[in-house]
Amino acid sequence: MTEETQNTLKVGHNAFDHFTHGLATGEWDLFLDMLTDDFTFWFPVGSFHGLNVGKEQAREFFHYVNEVFGGISITSIERVTSSETTVVFEFRDEGHMRGEPYKNRIAVSFDIRGDKICGYREYLGSDGKSN
Amino acid sequence: MTEETQNTLKVGHNAFDHFTHGLATGEWDLFLDMLTDDFTFWFPVGSFHGLNVGKEQAREFFHYVNEVFGGISITSIERVTSSETTVVFEFRDEGHMRGEPYKNRIAVSFDIRGDKICGYREYLGSDGKSN
Repeated sequence: MTEETQNTLKVGHNAFDHFTHGLATGEWDLFLDMLTDDFTFWFPVGSFHGLNVGKEQAREFFHYVNEVFGGISITSIERVTSSETTVVFEFRDEGHMRGEPYKNRIAVSFDIRGDKICGYREYLGSDGKSN
Repeated sequence: MTEETQNTLKVGHNAFDHFTHGLATGEWDLFLDMLTDDFTFWFPVGSFHGLNVGKEQAREFFHYVNEVFGGISITSIERVTSSETTVVFEFRDEGHMRGEPYKNRIAVSFDIRGDKICGYREYLGSDGKSN
């Protein structure tokens, strides 16, 4: 594993820890601090469907996530894969969505530049009712 | 990169080539030949939603895919990440679903054992109308 790959994996894990904390608590500052100013993200459904550009858009998005879900727990990390620039986490989560029980299987892909996250893509593995 | 990681990545690329061919043509034999007998897969929606077990179930599934979609083209591979046992491909595809234009962003995750695929998880990154 090259030094660059090792760094990418380390920064990815760090970001994922902050992401987990944000989902559970609504406190996103540590995660948002890791984003580059030109951060972009793709989301599969809803108001933020498709490509979103910029850190401010990200701040709005993560606040929206906690409005819709309250707190979400990541119940297991299934796989972690990486390249020199990207780390993908497959995991299961559960919580409530607008008051209804919610479960899903998710893949998130973080693009890393130095010690920051410059891109994020989320993919859904289930129907929101099972994981 | 360890020898095991290199082998995993090589087998993953090989499987993905056959997967691409299957999606485009409906010819799945080369892909199915790479599956272990205890192969399992997770699919996010429809008749095969959730966990599916066994190679026969996989054969039925991939025939169902071509019944629903006809041919699907993978238009770009966005990212490839791997670990010692798993390779994830993020890609965009397009085609027709039941006659209507179809586009999506997809992540597929292959678990590798030796020169075979023992598991597969698919995740959807869009709404089927844009990618």
